[in-house]
Amino acid sequence: HAILFVNGFACKDPKTAVVEDFYFSGLHMAGNASNKQGSAVTAVNVAHIAGLNTLGISLARVDYARYGQNPPHIHPRASEILTVVEGSLYVGFVTSNLENKLFSKVLNQGDVFVFPQGLIHFQCNCGTKKAIAIAALSSKNPGVITIANAVFASKPSIKDDIIAKAFQVDKKIVDHIQAQF
Amino acid sequence: HAILFVNGFACKDPKTAVVEDFYFSGLHMAGNASNKQGSAVTAVNVAHIAGLNTLGISLARVDYARYGQNPPHIHPRASEILTVVEGSLYVGFVTSNLENKLFSKVLNQGDVFVFPQGLIHFQCNCGTKKAIAIAALSSKNPGVITIANAVFASKPSIKDDIIAKAFQVDKKIVDHIQAQF
Amino acid sequence: HAILFVNGFACKDPKTAVVEDFYFSGLHMAGNASNKQGSAVTAVNVAHIAGLNTLGISLARVDYARYGQNPPHIHPRASEILTVVEGSLYVGFVTSNLENKLFSKVLNQGDVFVFPQGLIHFQCNCGTKKAIAIAALSSKNPGVITIANAVFASKPSIKDDIIAKAFQVDKKIVDHIQAQF
Amino acid sequence: HAILFVNGFACKDPKTAVVEDFYFSGLHMAGNASNKQGSAVTAVNVAHIAGLNTLGISLARVDYARYGQNPPHIHPRASEILTVVEGSLYVGFVTSNLENKLFSKVLNQGDVFVFPQGLIHFQCNCGTKKAIAIAALSSKNPGVITIANAVFASKPSIKDDIIAKAFQVDKKIVDHIQAQF
Amino acid sequence: HAILFVNGFACKDPKTAVVEDFYFSGLHMAGNASNKQGSAVTAVNVAHIAGLNTLGISLARVDYARYGQNPPHIHPRASEILTVVEGSLYVGFVTSNLENKLFSKVLNQGDVFVFPQGLIHFQCNCGTKKAIAIAALSSKNPGVITIANAVFASKPSIKDDIIAKAFQVDKKIVDHIQAQF
Amino acid sequence: HAILFVNGFACKDPKTAVVEDFYFSGLHMAGNASNKQGSAVTAVNVAHIAGLNTLGISLARVDYARYGQNPPHIHPRASEILTVVEGSLYVGFVTSNLENKLFSKVLNQGDVFVFPQGLIHFQCNCGTKKAIAIAALSSKNPGVITIANAVFASKPSIKDDIIAKAFQVDKKIVDHIQAQF
Repeated sequence: HAILFVNGFACKDPKTAVVEDFYFSGLHMAGNASNKQGSAVTAVNVAHIAGLNTLGISLARVDYARYGQNPPHIHPRASEILTVVEGSLYVGFVTSNLENKLFSKVLNQGDVFVFPQGLIHFQCNCGTKKAIAIAALSSKNPGVITIANAVFASKPSIKDDIIAKAFQVDKKIVDHIQAQF
Repeated sequence: HAILFVNGFACKDPKTAVVEDFYFSGLHMAGNASNKQGSAVTAVNVAHIAGLNTLGISLARVDYARYGQNPPHIHPRASEILTVVEGSLYVGFVTSNLENKLFSKVLNQGDVFVFPQGLIHFQCNCGTKKAIAIAALSSKNPGVITIANAVFASKPSIKDDIIAKAFQVDKKIVDHIQAQF
Repeated sequence: HAILFVNGFACKDPKTAVVEDFYFSGLHMAGNASNKQGSAVTAVNVAHIAGLNTLGISLARVDYARYGQNPPHIHPRASEILTVVEGSLYVGFVTSNLENKLFSKVLNQGDVFVFPQGLIHFQCNCGTKKAIAIAALSSKNPGVITIANAVFASKPSIKDDIIAKAFQVDKKIVDHIQAQF
Repeated sequence: HAILFVNGFACKDPKTAVVEDFYFSGLHMAGNASNKQGSAVTAVNVAHIAGLNTLGISLARVDYARYGQNPPHIHPRASEILTVVEGSLYVGFVTSNLENKLFSKVLNQGDVFVFPQGLIHFQCNCGTKKAIAIAALSSKNPGVITIANAVFASKPSIKDDIIAKAFQVDKKIVDHIQAQF
Repeated sequence: HAILFVNGFACKDPKTAVVEDFYFSGLHMAGNASNKQGSAVTAVNVAHIAGLNTLGISLARVDYARYGQNPPHIHPRASEILTVVEGSLYVGFVTSNLENKLFSKVLNQGDVFVFPQGLIHFQCNCGTKKAIAIAALSSKNPGVITIANAVFASKPSIKDDIIAKAFQVDKKIVDHIQAQF
Repeated sequence: HAILFVNGFACKDPKTAVVEDFYFSGLHMAGNASNKQGSAVTAVNVAHIAGLNTLGISLARVDYARYGQNPPHIHPRASEILTVVEGSLYVGFVTSNLENKLFSKVLNQGDVFVFPQGLIHFQCNCGTKKAIAIAALSSKNPGVITIANAVFASKPSIKDDIIAKAFQVDKKIVDHIQAQF
């Protein structure tokens, strides 16, 4: 039985829709942040709730271990608004060329911050305990591109001389970074 | 000095943007739900964060007293995705004519539910303690229309014979309801 | 043979399109307004003209019996512009919270009025004869939600204690209203 | 006092909005179709109703004298849906290259027809009396480009050798046509 | 095996996407401009590159023979930006009613010009050698409607008395023009 | 005299529009690619042609010195379609998480390639001479974010321990890279 892909997702016959098509459970559970970056994103988008199709919105929970961070990344199809549920986060985004201005701030519980569409941004646990954030994104399917992974760990790799010139470093350093992933 | 309204809001000169234009604080504080409905919505949209302009997203916190409810309402310009942070909520939305099907569900902590654009929906604290939800909306300025208030408490009032016929009741009942607001 | 639902409707192969795909007949015929509200809406949208798919527009004719009304309702996905073809209508819409301001006006033949997207609005025959209006909506599939029906006659019903608290009346009154539908 | 143009139109402060901002009168009056084409369009768009700004819809009435026609034209920013209120119309649109297929039909009272965005279309009174149509367009400001006028009567003129080659006729014929306008 | 048409085109399963889905070759080759208009358009849109689906952009190369022209035409779903790669072009567009103002200019190599959505426009080789332009359009599937062909050479023909009245000329002239195509 | 910023740009009164508002010159001239990356982008967007406002398209020329590259970057608000005018380019883009698949290809003169919205992409001169490309973007104001500059050379800097953890390298290496810019 073939699956159909239409801008990502097809709708089911509305007459067969059930309440579960608008439902997801489990966002109260911490993601496993025991990894190199010390963070875990639990996404709730059209892949998890079929009824989000065409609605232009989705949700995510981010857990940060002590010293953990959600490393610099972009959402190619969405802006983001985030609130700190627990702990403290140092967050920031960088504006586009030529300024590449960093807008950053320490957020505490209940603080809200906006990351405009397509800008590189990050959150970093700057407290002494774990931290939790809830984020909303302006797309049913926002996408995530972790900068370090996309540049240094694509499959296959981007040629090291391209990256070396882009980052103005020796190819050996590029090879070294690529080897970490 | 005149204020300009362009689809609601004008942008400032990007060169003068500061980090505070993307920031709001206070979403960790409970709204005052000591009112007739027993709920309080703390909205964080373009009226509170100027940098949300044109970004198509906003956030809200809803506090529910014991037995409290966020009464049937619509957002004229947004879909909503909500997660229960604390307590239990009985939530639902009603589809459009002719079916007017009620999709409802009891949500517990960590559950997520979607209210598609423009549909009448509600949340009701069905637990024995206060409840808290975080909701995201697909507009910088989603708008809220509480059905009972818009129908029975507009300024000036909708004529009672219009409402009486719409709701198929005696005008005295309409007058009685209008008098509550 | 399976039917496909993609944002509601799939397109046919343009090579097989025929003139009938852009055509509908019968809008000159009065709808049957002999019902409780004294009005009848004849819609002409993508369900009636396949060629409207993706075009963002549709049409409707509304017939009003003497004293008839098109009761308070919303279109979740469209703004509306209406013109009175025959008779007189008292029309209005209510703005969103917190103001809930009623904008209302008596319209005569040839008058035109706008109901912005998602706002509760109504038309009421305030003349001594039948009335007719033509309305256009900014969606191929605008949807209609009659407030009274969606709130008091959904299937299954919204619990009466939710409605009672929302409308600030006794549950008996809610039960009474629910029984009318 | 300077007027501001933002995508055509700026919004006023919503607090100062009045019911007249959503109102227009006079669509019951026949336009003066005593002209060369034998038709008259009475448009009701954002230039006539300020409250249409950003709502993506507008209306028009078209009057056709006996033998009159609304000559081939396009709307650069809108699709159209039209219904015949009185009389009979022969209507049509031509699809884009390479097919340039003509979809045409005789419409009688109550018939509805769709003209997809940007396609050349026309209506022609094919009855023995005057005709009237109501049309809706999917833009607050759809624009109209009458083909003959834009090609043969622009200010200043398009060079006649360009038109002559485009229409594959002698320049004298082009000059002759240009002289009619 | 049935082909599916959804707003024109369906997406393939992203897991099966290959680099060729984003690739086209041959835009360096001159189109054959040995025709009546003396021009040839080589389009590169979603019909040629499947990966353009939903991306809102496409490309075209236009070759102009000596004295050749890209005759007056419109794109029903796109604006255009064009740059002259070789030679000189006299270009123009006509604004909508009532002004029908001609904006025209001679472009030389490296000049860039904009044709706003849905407006009638043309380019004409005004140099003594062939000319080449690259144009970009704001749609995956912009469509092209050559005015002369759509009006005088549709299949079947628009009735000559409609065109005669529209262009204010004798039917014989219309028949003469129709016979050229 | 204050400048107004509305989604970036305000429109002028259409009555005062002149042909120069739709015109730009100089795209035939090579940008100065004598820099560290060996490339130069000449952009033609709404900042250069006021008439592009609201039209959703813009253009750019890219010059590549021998061995030059347009380093990994994103456009936060646009997809891109590029054609090689002269020389050969090795181009690629990386898909979003979790796959981070590299789609890459060597392009020769006349080849066309698509970079979907928000994805990291690059072009690299892989020939033995200079190369030239023309690119079109699906926004009046697409924005450019050069990854290396935004991550390692923002003003002020992103803290080196954030970058060090993101790229999984020693802070000394980060400091070394930051010092290059």
